[in-house]
Amino acid sequence: MPRDVLGLRSETVRRANLSAILRELHTHGSLSRSELVARTGLTRSAIRGLIGEFVAAGLMAERRSASDGQPGRPSPQVRLDPGGGVVLALEMAVDSLAASIVGLGGEVLAHRRVDRPRGHFSVDETVADLLQLATSLGWPDRITGEPIGIGVAVVGVVRRSDGFVSIAPNLGWRDVPLGGLLAQAFATTGPVRVANDADLGALAEHRRGAARGHEHVLFISGEVGVGAGLISGGHPLAGAAGFAGEVGHIRVNPNGAACRCGSVGCWETEVGEGALLMRAGRAPGGGRKEVDALLADALAGSPSVLRAVDDVGRWLGVGIASLVNVLNPELIVLGGLFGRLHPFIERTLAAELDRFALAAPRGMVEIAPASLDIDAPLLGAAELAFEPFLADPAQWLRSEVGLRELASA
Amino acid sequence: MPRDVLGLRSETVRRANLSAILRELHTHGSLSRSELVARTGLTRSAIRGLIGEFVAAGLMAERRSASDGQPGRPSPQVRLDPGGGVVLALEMAVDSLAASIVGLGGEVLAHRRVDRPRGHFSVDETVADLLQLATSLGWPDRITGEPIGIGVAVVGVVRRSDGFVSIAPNLGWRDVPLGGLLAQAFATTGPVRVANDADLGALAEHRRGAARGHEHVLFISGEVGVGAGLISGGHPLAGAAGFAGEVGHIRVNPNGAACRCGSVGCWETEVGEGALLMRAGRAPGGGRKEVDALLADALAGSPSVLRAVDDVGRWLGVGIASLVNVLNPELIVLGGLFGRLHPFIERTLAAELDRFALAAPRGMVEIAPASLDIDAPLLGAAELAFEPFLADPAQWLRSEVGLRELASA
Repeated sequence: MPRDVLGLRSETVRRANLSAILRELHTHGSLSRSELVARTGLTRSAIRGLIGEFVAAGLMAERRSASDGQPGRPSPQVRLDPGGGVVLALEMAVDSLAASIVGLGGEVLAHRRVDRPRGHFSVDETVADLLQLATSLGWPDRITGEPIGIGVAVVGVVRRSDGFVSIAPNLGWRDVPLGGLLAQAFATTGPVRVANDADLGALAEHRRGAARGHEHVLFISGEVGVGAGLISGGHPLAGAAGFAGEVGHIRVNPNGAACRCGSVGCWETEVGEGALLMRAGRAPGGGRKEVDALLADALAGSPSVLRAVDDVGRWLGVGIASLVNVLNPELIVLGGLFGRLHPFIERTLAAELDRFALAAPRGMVEIAPASLDIDAPLLGAAELAFEPFLADPAQWLRSEVGLRELASA
Repeated sequence: MPRDVLGLRSETVRRANLSAILRELHTHGSLSRSELVARTGLTRSAIRGLIGEFVAAGLMAERRSASDGQPGRPSPQVRLDPGGGVVLALEMAVDSLAASIVGLGGEVLAHRRVDRPRGHFSVDETVADLLQLATSLGWPDRITGEPIGIGVAVVGVVRRSDGFVSIAPNLGWRDVPLGGLLAQAFATTGPVRVANDADLGALAEHRRGAARGHEHVLFISGEVGVGAGLISGGHPLAGAAGFAGEVGHIRVNPNGAACRCGSVGCWETEVGEGALLMRAGRAPGGGRKEVDALLADALAGSPSVLRAVDDVGRWLGVGIASLVNVLNPELIVLGGLFGRLHPFIERTLAAELDRFALAAPRGMVEIAPASLDIDAPLLGAAELAFEPFLADPAQWLRSEVGLRELASA
């Protein structure tokens, strides 16, 4: 292996440079060679050579730009071929299953979501349903070659290293080796990466949604449970094993209600879907239909419903103030139920933060609703599946072996 | 400027490599060339050349090892010269001021701490006292050349970019441009970096104390107030502006006491020094002397004092359980008052975590007392001051200019 005089193996440098270029195009879409020079700090000639490798492998195409009004030759535009590398994204949500095929650059090439009643489904049943759903997308026949990997979002507490689900109360699961079961069912030796749905929602909102361009982000998603994904210094903060972000189980009320987790007075017992419905006099287990009706009442100006929503807004403020003090984010993105409530609680939330958060971090934080809606975790699962490829695309370019063998190497 | 064929400027690579070597030696002490090869991934010949540069600049020395029992020539040992680069570390604690001169590798070359009564001192008075304290160490005459920089720990909420103290309730300060005032008083144009004391305690415990070798650490320090420093993936997590870690102001009790921050029921109103003293029937403002007496009573087995300590342990458990759920640390280090309480509350704390933290993150987290004692924030301030030098030592090596001019460039 060649070594350069400075002591870094030149192969190491080449791989890092390939990764830098691929990441820029995956995140920002089509870019000119000049923009790539500016964004990566690489020289023009290095960019030319490395892009040549991607083009030869069928991952990118170059196109001469029309004159851009600048003197001299316009810089060629480089774009990814979305079909050049695809992933399969899967999601297990509280009341639906979803699957997408997503291409390089984030383009969704195929997508299906199917509702299913809330309740406790067996793991085998769920895995079989997901396989059927993915097959209905035409995977893997529809796409050229094998997918780079499979990314999975699940509404539960997940160990990242092997996709082991410690607990998923809404699915009724405990200690499920989900990553291994999916790999078996999908007959893949390639990587199956599983993560918590809120963590992946944060990843997607950061890369392609409301948090784009922000470095310190807290994404808080409310449904039956409450979860968060953290972005710190531009990178996901997953904690030691991937369990970070379980903000629903901050204990905000020592005299509060029993929580499904076994504790008492957890934040989600005050602000989760059940708490909202109960405060408004509706069946706490009524699900999406009841929530839709409640929001319609709020929109119509029902005083009792607005009061219930406001109570949730105040308790949201209590927890968010604590998190602002601990994490000093610049942006809080509200997803799921909280995104839908945002227009009704915006003022209450701001007032509670003024009262309960320290002035310094309070003064710099903004709150915004999520922009990717229900599919945020699924899109995040796709990003998770792309990650090993983005981090080291070099092998793929040189190799004759299929991606599946590659990924298992 | 030379460019290598791969597109990275070779000067960029050289600087990164110098930084990698210096960091290893600064953190781990004396290492053999072979160990440096293993730790940095650089080639043996590159290591030799780069160390030559450090030796020529008077920062390192090499010594041939005695035979190590292995066949072949033993690998030379490389060690830093602590006097080759020094920083000044300052601390403003609740009831003391401290100053140290610290050399490369973390050796404390001079140190003084002076008690002062608790209370509200003017900023000017405090800055003047610190200057006098530092001068009494022989700074800058005692050391060769100018210090690399000044690092400052302060018991308050600090904006990292310019050392602006938003609030320091125990000193009675609000909106103090401390970084600028210290630079002026010390007549330095070099960098003066200011940070929160708990953040710096975490940095020191991570680099040289109880958290050494751990990647995901939460350092929680109790005194009058309660603060934390977070280490995530091996790096300090400071938040968007350096305000992160204000865990004392998590709101744990909606029916709790008013907090000095203006909120109600903050964690530090339940577990801070004042709360502990009050629970034990002592004057809450009695300070260190009262705490010492209380701990002596606890050691003697006083049931009422042990009950008070246990109450604090239970409320500590409530807050720590929430933080474990949010951050998934592998290690929690208890500093200050909490480190001293640790032997008395270890069991209570464990039981509360079992009850209130989610099983998955709970199962992997350990709790340990801090090992650096009262000087942790001061040592962290030294590390903060070293940071720019560790990140890019190249200029220093080539340049004839003094560090002071360099740092201001």
